Parts: sequence; structure tokens; C-alpha cells
Amino acid sequence: MTITIEQRSAQRLIVAQPPVAIEQPSTDHKEVNAMIVVMRSNADESQINAVLERLKEHSLRGHLSQGEERTIIGVVGAAIPPILREELEVFPGVQQTVPITRPYKLTAREFRPEDTIVMVGDVAVGAGSCVIMAGPCTVESEEQIITTARSVREAGATMLRGGAFKPRSSPYTFRGMGEEGLRLLALARAETGLPIVTEVMTPTDVDLVARYADVLQVGARNMQNYQLLEEVGRTGKPVLLKRGLSATIEEWLLSAEYVVAQGNPNVILCERGIRTFETATRNTMDLNAVALAKRRSHLPVIADPSHGTGKWYLVPPLALASLAAGADGLIIEVHPDPDRAKSDGAQSLTPENFAALMSRLAALAAALGR
Amino acid sequence: MTITIEQRSAQRLIVAQPPVAIEQPSTDHKEVNAMIVVMRSNADESQINAVLERLKEHSLRGHLSQGEERTIIGVVGAAIPPILREELEVFPGVQQTVPITRPYKLTAREFRPEDTIVMVGDVAVGAGSCVIMAGPCTVESEEQIITTARSVREAGATMLRGGAFKPRSSPYTFRGMGEEGLRLLALARAETGLPIVTEVMTPTDVDLVARYADVLQVGARNMQNYQLLEEVGRTGKPVLLKRGLSATIEEWLLSAEYVVAQGNPNVILCERGIRTFETATRNTMDLNAVALAKRRSHLPVIADPSHGTGKWYLVPPLALASLAAGADGLIIEVHPDPDRAKSDGAQSLTPENFAALMSRLAALAAALGR
Amino acid sequence: MTITIEQRSAQRLIVAQPPVAIEQPSTDHKEVNAMIVVMRSNADESQINAVLERLKEHSLRGHLSQGEERTIIGVVGAAIPPILREELEVFPGVQQTVPITRPYKLTAREFRPEDTIVMVGDVAVGAGSCVIMAGPCTVESEEQIITTARSVREAGATMLRGGAFKPRSSPYTFRGMGEEGLRLLALARAETGLPIVTEVMTPTDVDLVARYADVLQVGARNMQNYQLLEEVGRTGKPVLLKRGLSATIEEWLLSAEYVVAQGNPNVILCERGIRTFETATRNTMDLNAVALAKRRSHLPVIADPSHGTGKWYLVPPLALASLAAGADGLIIEVHPDPDRAKSDGAQSLTPENFAALMSRLAALAAALGR
Amino acid sequence: MTITIEQRSAQRLIVAQPPVAIEQPSTDHKEVNAMIVVMRSNADESQINAVLERLKEHSLRGHLSQGEERTIIGVVGAAIPPILREELEVFPGVQQTVPITRPYKLTAREFRPEDTIVMVGDVAVGAGSCVIMAGPCTVESEEQIITTARSVREAGATMLRGGAFKPRSSPYTFRGMGEEGLRLLALARAETGLPIVTEVMTPTDVDLVARYADVLQVGARNMQNYQLLEEVGRTGKPVLLKRGLSATIEEWLLSAEYVVAQGNPNVILCERGIRTFETATRNTMDLNAVALAKRRSHLPVIADPSHGTGKWYLVPPLALASLAAGADGLIIEVHPDPDRAKSDGAQSLTPENFAALMSRLAALAAALGR
Repeated sequence: MTITIEQRSAQRLIVAQPPVAIEQPSTDHKEVNAMIVVMRSNADESQINAVLERLKEHSLRGHLSQGEERTIIGVVGAAIPPILREELEVFPGVQQTVPITRPYKLTAREFRPEDTIVMVGDVAVGAGSCVIMAGPCTVESEEQIITTARSVREAGATMLRGGAFKPRSSPYTFRGMGEEGLRLLALARAETGLPIVTEVMTPTDVDLVARYADVLQVGARNMQNYQLLEEVGRTGKPVLLKRGLSATIEEWLLSAEYVVAQGNPNVILCERGIRTFETATRNTMDLNAVALAKRRSHLPVIADPSHGTGKWYLVPPLALASLAAGADGLIIEVHPDPDRAKSDGAQSLTPENFAALMSRLAALAAALGR
Repeated sequence: MTITIEQRSAQRLIVAQPPVAIEQPSTDHKEVNAMIVVMRSNADESQINAVLERLKEHSLRGHLSQGEERTIIGVVGAAIPPILREELEVFPGVQQTVPITRPYKLTAREFRPEDTIVMVGDVAVGAGSCVIMAGPCTVESEEQIITTARSVREAGATMLRGGAFKPRSSPYTFRGMGEEGLRLLALARAETGLPIVTEVMTPTDVDLVARYADVLQVGARNMQNYQLLEEVGRTGKPVLLKRGLSATIEEWLLSAEYVVAQGNPNVILCERGIRTFETATRNTMDLNAVALAKRRSHLPVIADPSHGTGKWYLVPPLALASLAAGADGLIIEVHPDPDRAKSDGAQSLTPENFAALMSRLAALAAALGR
Repeated sequence: MTITIEQRSAQRLIVAQPPVAIEQPSTDHKEVNAMIVVMRSNADESQINAVLERLKEHSLRGHLSQGEERTIIGVVGAAIPPILREELEVFPGVQQTVPITRPYKLTAREFRPEDTIVMVGDVAVGAGSCVIMAGPCTVESEEQIITTARSVREAGATMLRGGAFKPRSSPYTFRGMGEEGLRLLALARAETGLPIVTEVMTPTDVDLVARYADVLQVGARNMQNYQLLEEVGRTGKPVLLKRGLSATIEEWLLSAEYVVAQGNPNVILCERGIRTFETATRNTMDLNAVALAKRRSHLPVIADPSHGTGKWYLVPPLALASLAAGADGLIIEVHPDPDRAKSDGAQSLTPENFAALMSRLAALAAALGR
Repeated sequence: MTITIEQRSAQRLIVAQPPVAIEQPSTDHKEVNAMIVVMRSNADESQINAVLERLKEHSLRGHLSQGEERTIIGVVGAAIPPILREELEVFPGVQQTVPITRPYKLTAREFRPEDTIVMVGDVAVGAGSCVIMAGPCTVESEEQIITTARSVREAGATMLRGGAFKPRSSPYTFRGMGEEGLRLLALARAETGLPIVTEVMTPTDVDLVARYADVLQVGARNMQNYQLLEEVGRTGKPVLLKRGLSATIEEWLLSAEYVVAQGNPNVILCERGIRTFETATRNTMDLNAVALAKRRSHLPVIADPSHGTGKWYLVPPLALASLAAGADGLIIEVHPDPDRAKSDGAQSLTPENFAALMSRLAALAAALGR
């Protein structure tokens, strides 16, 4: 684990731990401070407890993060007295204290060097293997969702995606089956054992959706819907946070911070393409963001090549590319009959093409040692 | 009033009525139909009623729009039988029927050729003169809001803006005074007689904010928060709808359609700058959008040069430019002490600079015959 | 004239001189230094000469800029010894020396506080009035160019624009008449007395085009064609430098620096719309850039609403807006028969609409005191 | 080989031949026509010759493309008489004729279904394996270029990249060693046997650079420098065409068409990141474009993760992702001492990290069957 400032002249082999980036953070978020206390590798429990005690005296809570090599204690608070850092630096077992200058704190890699693993049932997201969430854009009928769930499970998917509440830019288009859709998803889960990922669009729906869903999806349009972020945060359930169409990586991590700040560390980031000048594709898949978000944050990051491209025939190459870029998982639209899909048919794979893609992903994962 | 397809070879003088644009609309909004029935200039009331009657028989409602020259009847419905158009074409007094192919219907210029005028107290928005909404980004104290309200009224502003609920990209920054802020705004209104424009961020706050505000502002981040759009639609109160950071003009009008579809025609569109590659300014003011939105829609359009530029010294030139581009009003951040503002100080004008700007705007408005 | 660092707390009335902006310049252009020597208001000629002499001793040239209030001496050089600044600070008549930290030097407002005026024949660009350059996108025939030239001059245009060499994204589209087109432009000038603005696309054509043209236009696609910039710089002729489709304001001014660094100060900047996600308009007119470029640089800035919008019916409102934003001129496409134009018909005005626009521009200019 | 219109309902397995896409092409390139004549699988030589003969009679040239299954004859011409298509349809051995409606013709996949393979010495670009071009951004000294050439060859690179003529946004920064740099590149080639890729910036330099280089690079800023495109086209040498910072995929292929239209089919397309709103990375790598360009065109496509990310630590993940997305090669900046590089140090890999990346690329290529 490396806390020293990155030096290109000391470029470590790529296999080394990601160092702390050198970029200056944006400066207009002064209201809160955060720091990490780096313990010596030989620090014992009593020394760690002594630090936690002192933090308590300042009514601050320490977030323990035990690495193989050493222990890190993260602290976030509106009022971290400057003197406290100096005090702690001379504590036995303390190697150094480092202020976190990024606007996001709890989600920052500096705050927690180890990767966060989000458990969905017994599926581990962020633990190395590539998790596949597949299913239709929208739940349309019992037969459609059950058929699809069976075929994607057979092909190797580990979660089922499907929309019951759909955000639509026009008030005149189909907006999903609502709670009935949630019931059908639960039915598909009972049939196949696949956990469910589905979108929640507004704070007042969170309890309802949380009763059915295993993962609460916050869509791109709602990435900065702060009341919704706090509400899903309060549930403690895994949250799939899609990046906004024109959100910077920093804004994306700040939205994740809203969820984590509610005491819910189970956030899965999802790159789904950004809006650019290019019109030949629905969005522009930003795989730089997948790699950079994993470096800047300890949260798992997955990719959505269906929305990221908007064309079924571009989904396979971009799915493979996302995995190679380091994505912890993929969310892919699959429909038994794309031409008759109520939404996103053009970007949905047939079950056959999905199965073909899965076997190529498996080969790739093996080559990447995942 | 011109319903014929625009022909460049027949470019009318700019003073002529805006014709219907020729661009093809996006095609994936087939669920609803809309058409307009154009009556002959000499059509009498009985003929108009006959049309409305026939629409009723198909359980469709006609939206009357009486121009100087002639009357237009707009119709929107999931099920407009094709045969109905043919029937109506032979009705006495009917000149022609024209289907509306744009995804937005009620907000389309074709649907209502006359400009919509939104009344806020006795301030008319969209009636020709340039309405000025001014005030601080955030309500900070009684003294601050009262002082500012007095100075902007003195300088000629006709509405007071101020935030009680603030969307902030970081969970650690000041998010406004909440209801206390609303109370202070009401106090400032009582003091100065200026109607209040303030933001509402989530559906459950709409009733509360509506009790205090004269205009409900929906911010850029919430432009596609559909539950919020429908909730403010239900209040019937004037709604200020800001364009999203990366929303197309079509998406912006579709969001307005959500409000109007609730039976609330009182929507004021607000261009506040879009996100582009340029970093020398906070956003890129898109005045093309002001002119095009006024052409595509009958709703009033105002501009926000404070957020559109992010720099106080660019506010005056862009405010003047917005007026010249046809904006029906401006919303401008003014703070008694920008350097100590809790937010947006860099883009807030001092009362002195605001007053200087107002006199230049007056001269310009006169020259434009407004 | 203000050299002090801008303080928002000391916001001057908008009528005051633009102060030096506070933004940090990008830092990766360290190879060259520049500074300005600010003389006291009462400094006499001998004191000024003494400074110039000392600069000579370091083989540096001083650029004199005589303001009403005081004199500024600008210096650019790879090797400005730090000691020199200290020496000069104690010279009689010297008030202070200020290093220029922006990547562009000769084009920076700090380097030359007074506006640069570019003379084209007896037309002054940047002297306060709004210069109108009008004509067809492409020269198509003698009759077409002569007719258009006559009609735009009648309407009040002061220069004639027309393309003989056309950059086209497809190799299969009409690329202009070449030298024959230049001959026809010269003919139109002889007929009407209007100076000619026309594009040059490649270094080897510069001499040819310069023999005919009064202003050499460098197109958006060539904004970073450095050999072309240096070649037009060497001619000493006025250069119209269009902003690239995705060029930042800083990159735009750096391209101007290429021309001025050849000893040719006669650069006219032209904002012509940038490329964004919005597809309802051909480009997004960035009027922030017009106002900011005039603040950051002393060069005149004009606007091109024809390319900036791509739609004839948006040209008038954006032309008025550009003037209000502070543009020193406009370049507008006019064609006797837009529907039959070989290029850009959709954005070309008819002579009638151009005349109507001209009268509205005149009224606006008067109101703005220009 | 599939000429039928793509049907999603008939999604073939991903391994199938790419079908013709359904998108409508832009319509403003009517000046030239193109079509393909599809011969029956059993068509014999005499039947093929008969078609070529008839084309000659109309002074049109047929481009033969012999697939395993069948033969395609492509035709491009300003004047393809409509009647000709009907005539050919009844020729013996002709299955059908299909007009090419895209603005680009010779570079379109429809025009030539088979992948184009560009030979650089005995290195085949586009033949399945992933070609690696590596080296410093700029040639700085004999020792620097020789050392780097040796280390990248050792690590498995098959070509050497290095800049002798550098486009720089500022006139005050180092612009490369010029011809001396070319000489050093030639020296490095003699030492290592690696072919040279280097940039040419202006038409008058093409002959000079072509005397030294094996591949002529046209940079992003020059993607629409048409005289340069035609000049490199005339040399017949392999051309590396970088995508412009804000160029659409269609514009990119149209620029390639300029080169191919000169009779030079040896074009290698290079995605190097586009300009978006995201500032955390230098550019946004658009891997959608890599996959889509390979589908729309028969030309090989490589990727430049160094410029695409701007950060050395993002180069490895994006290099792997580019390969997985289908890139035919990679161009990567390597410098013996990035911290002291005269340009692009931040995005240059050390020889150690490059070697580590190469072994990971090899494993990935094997898994992808390349």
C-alpha cells in the first residue's frame, strides 16, 4: 500500500498498488476535513486503540482499514483540529498522518486502500471476478422475464436486471409496469435464484422497491438527485450508481459519497457512456473513467456497454474492452425478441448472441487472471 | 400565422411569423398522436363548436387558440383515429388539419401559434418586455435578503430570486436554510412587493415551497426528475424550468411537456449554459437555444447569464446578448458582498454593477422596441 | 487602465477598464518570458527611451503602447534576466514591472491594454463601430458575386466575403473556383469598392490569395495549421482567424500568437460556433468567448452567426446578440437564391432579409453607443 | 459476406460477417455516385470481365474484390447512369447491384467487404495480429532514440514511433529537431530493423519526410488538412491517419477517402481520444469508434492510449481494452526518463512498464485468438 506522492521517475511495475494521484483537487469544498492515520507495519492493537481513543475525545470516529502490510485509520469530520494531526504524529505506532484534500473522502482510495467488496446475496462484486448482470431493459410480461432470466442464467449471468419504473424523456411513452413489474422480477428470482437489479426513481418509492430488489439502481438522470441518494443510502442495501450523461468523474464520486455518508458502503459505480458530439453511437463509452475511478476510489466499478453504445453489434467488443480495462462487472441488455422490445431493442442482444459473448468473456477473464 | 412548410426560397422578412421548421422529429415517441385543425379566417363560432363536438364524440378535447387572423384547434390523444382527420377536413369552416410530428405536442409552436404569457402576480412573462429576476444565489440572513431585495427593486428588478434549498454536488457543503429561508423570502416580498422565485428539489417539498413561492424553480440537475415535474405541474403555479447541463433542446421541451400535460400551462423555460469542452467559463451560454426554443415552442424563454458564464464580469455582456437574442427575461445573481457569499460569489454582481447593467438593458430594450 | 489584480470586492462599474483576470494560466509554456514595464503617468520621453535603451543592451525589443493615462512597454524574449526587472523598477519614471504569466504574450491584454485596431483599406476593425462582412459562402459566377456585392453594399455592408478555395469534408464535393474565383472577387471589389475577405487553405497558396484579397481568412479546420499561420503572418496583411470547432479560447489566442509573432499585428479573431452535443443547430455559438477573448486580448473579435447557427432564421437574433455581447463585427452569408446555393444555402440570408437585419443592427448599435 | 440490410431479428452470432448498417447517411454529398456489383458465387471470369468491359464503355473503373464466397465489383464515379444498374442486373453471373449511399465510398465496408491489410516492410497491419508501434513523443538525441528503439524492440514492439516535426499549440515551445530528427530515426531503424512512423505537418515537407519514414503520420490537428491528405496520398506510402479531436467517425472516414482517392489504399486509422467535458483525463478514449470504424470501413484501425488518456498509469488498462475492442494495433509513447522528456512525459511509459504491458498484451491476444 502506497501513500507516498506518485513519482513518474519511480514508475512502479503496473502490478504494483495504485499510488495516490498528484492532481490538485477542486478547492471549493472546504467545509469538511478528512485525514488518514498511517500506522507502522509493526503497530500493535493497543497502539491502534490509543489513536481511536484520542479521536473519540475529539468526538471523531476512526474508520479502520487493515491491509496485509499495515493498518490505516481514516477520519472525516467538520472539525478536525489541526493540532490533532501533530499530536497523533508522535503517538507510538503512528508512521504519519495525511490530510485528504479531495472533495470526496469516504469514497477516496486514500481513505481506504483496499478494494471494497459489495456482497449481493452470495455474489461478490469487486472481489476479482467479473460479475454479469443481464436481462431486458423493461419487464414486459411474466413469460418475457422468466424466459430471459432462464436463458441468461444458463449462459452464466449471476444477476438479473430489469426495469419496473422507467425514466422516459417523453411523458407519452411506456413508463414500466410499476409494482407488478417488481413482483414478476421476484418471481424470476424465485425461479432462477438470480438476485435482482432494478431502478428506483424517486425517494418515496425507495421502500417499495427495496422490498423486492437486491440491488437498487440509481439511473444516470438521477445521479445528482440528492434526496434519492440519501434515501437509498439509508436502506443499507447495495446501490448501483450510474454515471450521469455529462457528469465528471469527480461529481460521480461525490454522488457516491452522498450514499456512503449515510453509513451505506455498498455502492457499485457504473459507467454507461457519456454525451459527446459523436452521433454515430448513442453515447460515448468512457473506459478511461472505469480505470480512473478504480484508482481514485476503492468502490467496485462496472460498465454498461448496452447504453454505452446503443447498438447491439457494438456491445460484444465494448463488453470485452470493459473487462480488459478493469471493470468488476458488466450490465447487459438481453431480450428474447429485440425487434419487439418495448424499449432499447436496438441495443439488446438476443439470447444466442449473449451466450456467444459470455464464452468470449470467460476466455478473456482467464487470460487476465480473473 | 403560417402552418405551411418552411421554404427558404420563400424566406419572409424576419418580422414575419415563425414558420414551422422542416427538421424531421425523432421518431421513437409513437405512443401519442396530436394534430391541429386550422379554421378558415371567416369561420364562425358554430363551425368551431361543431369541430369541438365531433372531437368530444371521440372523447378528445380541443385546445382553442384564437389568433387575430384565424382560429386553431389543437388536439392530443393516444387514439386519434386517422379517419377523424379526413372527416374534419370537409367540415364547413375548416381549412385543413395538420398532424404534429414532434415528440412534444402541447408545448409545440405548431400546437399554439400565439406566445404563451405566464402571469406572476401582475408581472407578465412573455408579453414583450424583458422581466428581470434578481437576488442572491442563497438566502443567508434576514439582513442579506432584505437589503438585496430593496436594492434590486430600486434598480428596476421585477422579481426576487433566492435559494432556500440548494442542490450541491458535495454532501459536505451548505445546502441552504430550508423553510427558514422561505420565511425570509416571504418577508422580503412583504417588504418590497417583489414576487419570489425559488427552487424546489424533491416532490415531497413541493407543497411546502408552493406555500411561499410565486414561481417554483426546477433546477438543471432535476430537469429530468419526472416525478418532480409532474408534482409542480399539479400545483398549477408558474414553473421556471432550467435546461439540463447536457440536455438537448428537444429533451428540454419534453420536460416542459411533463408539466403542461398536468394541466399547468405556466412554464417559463430558462437557458443557463450547457457543459462543453471549454473550461475558461463555468458553462457555455447557448443563445442559439433561446432563439430556437422560442421558435419551436410558444412558451416564454429567459436566460441566466450568471450560471451561463460563471464570471461576474461576463454577466453584463451576456445579459445584453440574451435580451438581443429574444429572451423574455433574465435571472441574475446579485449579492451585497460577493466575496463573502456562501455560494456563487464569483458570478454575483454587486448592487452597483447590477444597477449599471439595468440602465444599459433599458436602453437596449427600447432600441429593440420592447 | 488597470494592471492591478482583479478583486471582486472592488468590482468597478462595468464602464471601467477591464482588469487583469485572476485565473491561473496553464503552466506548460515556460520556454519564453514576457513582462510589461508600467511607466508613471508623468514619465517623459527621455525616461521611456532610457528603458528602451536598457532593453536593447539585453538585445530585447520594447513594444510601446501609449495610453491616455500612461505608457506601457511590453517585452517578450526567451532570455529576460530576472535581474533586469529589478534594475528597471528603480529607473526614473518606471512605476512597476509585471511579468506576463499567460502562455500567449503579444496577444495578451496585459501586454497591450489598448484595443488593437486593424485597418482594411479605410475600414477600421476594432475601433468601436460594428463592421459587416457579407457575401456568399462560395463564388459561383460573375453574375452571382456582382449582384450579391451590390446588394450587400446597398444594405450597408462594409466588406465582401466569398470563397474561392473551399475546405470540404468530402473529396467529392465542389471545392470552389480557385484563382478564377479570386479574379471575380477582385472584379466585384472594383465594381463596389468593398474590400475582399477570402479563405486561404495552404501555405503554398498564400502568395496567390494575398495578391487578390484584402483580408486573408484562416478557417476553423486550419486554426492549428501552424505553417499556414506563420505564412499569413509574413504577408503583414490583415488575417481573419476563425476559432476551431473544439478549440479552447486559450488555444485560439495561441494560434493568433503564431501570426503576431511573425511581426503581423493585424489579426481579427472570429467566433463561428463550437461543436457540442446539441444537434438542433449546426454549431453552438459561444458568445461567452467573444466577451472573454476581448477581455483577455487586445485584438478585435467578430462573430459568424451563419456558421454559428446553420439556420438562416437564427442568423438575425444571433447577429444582434453578438453585437450586444461586444463583437467588433459580423460576417454573414448572403445569397441571391439560397435554395440554389452550391453550399451553405440553409444558413444564407436572402438580400431582403439581410437588408432588414442591417436596419435592426443599426438601431441596436446606436443604443449601445457604437 | 452479407449485403442484405441488417435485421436485428436476424442477429447473427457475433462471429458472422458484419452486415451493412441501417443508419441513414448524411445527404449533402450528392456529387458522386458509387455502387457495388455483387456476382453470383458461381460467376466465372468471363462474366466478371463482361461487367468490367461494360463499365469501361461508360469510362468507369471497376474495383475487384474477390471474397472466398463470391466476387464484388465496386464502382465510383461522378456519372453512373441509372440505366447502367438496370443493364448490369440482367448480366449473366450478376446477382444484384447495390448503390452505396454513404458519403465515403472507397473506404466503405460495403465497397470492399474484405479487411484491407497495409504492409509496412514485412509487418502486416490489419491481418489479425496486434501491431505495436512504440517510442518517444519527440526525438531528442541519438542516444535517447537508439536506447529507446533497442528497449522497445526487445520488449516486442514491431515499429518505432518518434516525432521530428511537432505541432505545438504555443509558438514558444520546442517544435522538434526537423530533418536531423529524421536522420536519427533512420539510424535507429538501421540499428534495430524497426520500421519508422513519424509525423508530417505540411504538404511541402511530404517529400522530405517520405524519404526517411516508412509510415507517414497525419496528426489529429491536420485530419482535415486536405492538401496534406492528397499529398501523402500521392506518395503511395502507408499513412497513419489520426482522428481529429472533435471529428465524427464519418468525417474521419471522409478524410481517409481523400487519401485513398489519390490511389493510395494504404491507410491506417488511429483513434487517439476525443475532446469532451471530462478534464480528469487529457482526452476521452472512444473505443466505440474503434469497433464502429472497423465495421463501417475495411481499413485497419489502431489506438493511441497515450494521448487517449494523458496519464502513464492509464495507458496499460486502455491498451488492453483497445486490443479487446478489436484494434489492429497500438501506438504507445515510451521514454527512458519520462520526467525529463521534452514533451508528453506524463503519458510516457518507462521501458520497464512497457515491457510489463507487452507480456500482458501477448496473453490477451492469445485469448482473443489473435
